[in-house]
Amino acid sequence: MNALAETGERAKMAAMQFAHLNTKRKNDILLSFADALLKNTTTILEANNKDMKEGQEMGLSGAIMDRLMLSDDRFASMAGGLKDIAQLEDPIGEIIEMKKRPNGLLIGKKRVPLGVVGVIYESRPNVTADVSGLCIKTGNVCILRGGKEAFNSNNAIVRILRDVLAEQGIDRNVVQLVQDTSRESAIAMMKLNAFLDILIPRGGAGLIKSVVENSTVPIIETGVGNCHVFIDESADLMKAVKIVLNAKTQRPGVCNALESLLVHRKIAGEVLPELGRQLVEKGVEIRGDAAVRTYIPQAGEATEADWSTEYLDLILSIRTVDSLPEAIDHINHYGSKHSECIITENYSNAQEFLEKIDAAAVYVNASTRFTDGYEFGYGAEIGISTQKLHARGPMGLKELTTSKYIIYGNGQVRE
Amino acid sequence: MNALAETGERAKMAAMQFAHLNTKRKNDILLSFADALLKNTTTILEANNKDMKEGQEMGLSGAIMDRLMLSDDRFASMAGGLKDIAQLEDPIGEIIEMKKRPNGLLIGKKRVPLGVVGVIYESRPNVTADVSGLCIKTGNVCILRGGKEAFNSNNAIVRILRDVLAEQGIDRNVVQLVQDTSRESAIAMMKLNAFLDILIPRGGAGLIKSVVENSTVPIIETGVGNCHVFIDESADLMKAVKIVLNAKTQRPGVCNALESLLVHRKIAGEVLPELGRQLVEKGVEIRGDAAVRTYIPQAGEATEADWSTEYLDLILSIRTVDSLPEAIDHINHYGSKHSECIITENYSNAQEFLEKIDAAAVYVNASTRFTDGYEFGYGAEIGISTQKLHARGPMGLKELTTSKYIIYGNGQVRE
Repeated sequence: MNALAETGERAKMAAMQFAHLNTKRKNDILLSFADALLKNTTTILEANNKDMKEGQEMGLSGAIMDRLMLSDDRFASMAGGLKDIAQLEDPIGEIIEMKKRPNGLLIGKKRVPLGVVGVIYESRPNVTADVSGLCIKTGNVCILRGGKEAFNSNNAIVRILRDVLAEQGIDRNVVQLVQDTSRESAIAMMKLNAFLDILIPRGGAGLIKSVVENSTVPIIETGVGNCHVFIDESADLMKAVKIVLNAKTQRPGVCNALESLLVHRKIAGEVLPELGRQLVEKGVEIRGDAAVRTYIPQAGEATEADWSTEYLDLILSIRTVDSLPEAIDHINHYGSKHSECIITENYSNAQEFLEKIDAAAVYVNASTRFTDGYEFGYGAEIGISTQKLHARGPMGLKELTTSKYIIYGNGQVRE
Repeated sequence: MNALAETGERAKMAAMQFAHLNTKRKNDILLSFADALLKNTTTILEANNKDMKEGQEMGLSGAIMDRLMLSDDRFASMAGGLKDIAQLEDPIGEIIEMKKRPNGLLIGKKRVPLGVVGVIYESRPNVTADVSGLCIKTGNVCILRGGKEAFNSNNAIVRILRDVLAEQGIDRNVVQLVQDTSRESAIAMMKLNAFLDILIPRGGAGLIKSVVENSTVPIIETGVGNCHVFIDESADLMKAVKIVLNAKTQRPGVCNALESLLVHRKIAGEVLPELGRQLVEKGVEIRGDAAVRTYIPQAGEATEADWSTEYLDLILSIRTVDSLPEAIDHINHYGSKHSECIITENYSNAQEFLEKIDAAAVYVNASTRFTDGYEFGYGAEIGISTQKLHARGPMGLKELTTSKYIIYGNGQVRE
């Protein structure tokens, strides 16, 4: 993997300078990125058409083809995202804390870029622009390794971004796209400890599993979401129906969509018939326990496997529980620690759920679909972390930084 | 590795409850830990004597035997550490940030325990008490895998701690010691993703390398310190001599000790003869470039390998440089990103060094030996991170936590 090591070497060289660029210049680059994307849509669309044609020939699924396709809307959204990032506060250089020690040492903690950020992703060419933008704003250099299916689109976008960098007098290698899209290049990237400070996988469960198992570079695990809503005994049933329908059907193919519903037995008879009717009307297939099936005649039988399944589809498992602790145990056991919600009007139950559920995002009376960088006010996101180290939940600009201690002394030595 | 999975299962069960214990009860446990250690020194010393005897028979080195040995001083320090930890503020439950979004959602970020913390360590039985104490305070459960050479000592300490837990009505499995000290058990622990939220290696370069290469559990890389001092043209030479001697000789076998000295060429003739004399007097072997050797007659020749070497011994490499940028380039190239220092009276040079050096701790006019949890005011440390993810530099209580988003809604759904 000599080419990859050379890519790493170039990234590291670029990072030395780029980490110290001031905010004004970084914002100028982002705004020029946005302009250049809009000015060059034709070129990029040609490349995208090539990918789409090859994808069709390769028989890619409709879902992948949909992610792959660029359109005017998607150009507007990419460019808008870059402009949004330019508006956000620059986290770099912030002094997080500073204190004077008894010996007179002044010890501060300063926010600095991570250095070189690697991202392995699939199908969606807009990730190329999003990741580049977030890295630019945070003074990071990125090595992008997109999927084979989006290679032409990614290359077209990256070429335009690199031209902008060069025009602004910045090393082009602040953004690099790995040209080898073989499985071997992905595996080699996972071992690139000499050059990468972090590696983020964005894509399906297979990709993430491969990165967790093979990477010696520090990684952020993202993505898998077996999300629950629990309708408590004291729930406002209007809210319950509205939130469950939104969480399940507004966009079922994403990680923050609802996959499994728990209902307090005492309220099941009141809420399930109507909720079931509306879900079925929206085309949702329901798999439930015995009690659920008495209230929703169209429901099939849920098996043990259903409780752990992230369907990413219009399917919902439903279980009745006898108590809040039983709901909490179920979620902590079967959940993927992504987004979990309780519908309740009971103060103590709300607090207990918030305290005891172990997940990146715990909701009271709101749709799990809000777990995302834009909705949380971060402008953009580089992924949603489902691990506990470094970052948890939607990752924005701050999550692309680390810290260094800066210590002002006056001749102090240790006794 | 069935026994290890069972250990993991027990830890996970214990963690569910332990994460929610209040501060008062956690502090009571810590103070009882401290008392119990002091009350049971005889039992622990017997076990330690057994380890020492076996170590002698196995021909362990003097350095390892020294780390292994427990003494009244070390008991006092272990117990004192636990009492210190009890005094520190409990980071758990802190709301790091909270804001209201335009749609009325109130989104907060709350500090919570990591869950199950694994630590693989060597020789020093005091790590057993330190890690247990830090984990207790932060609501974490720990799985300890100490070295074979300290097995009896570690077991004696852990047995006493577990008795304290049981007396306080807490699950003993909040602290567990892996009973299998084979290399295979360490490797198996590195794959224990189902149960471990983090794995921290504490020990020599070999252990750390093995963990980086083999672990699929998220890890914190600790330890290696090829630390530099740069004596700038404008340095106060009194401070320079004092700091270099302290950083090199006060405790040469540790990661924050000085390994390589850079001296501005313009000041080399003024500082090196006297500094060299004092270093040699302290028994330091010097390896220098040609200029250094003209000022310090006892100096040997430094080879390229010397610039990257962490001696952990009374050896110092010295190089002359022509400028501050040359010093910065040298350190960023050869350093291990641990602790780096400039001696200067020049304001701009101090600021440039603080900005451009990429390391966990960057000093102006103070000894690198201060990089440690106690000296930074964290009461104790679980290690010194040399990676950029999650934690950088000395890791105290906060670094044993993660966050979760708590979201208060009122029926919000995503449009």
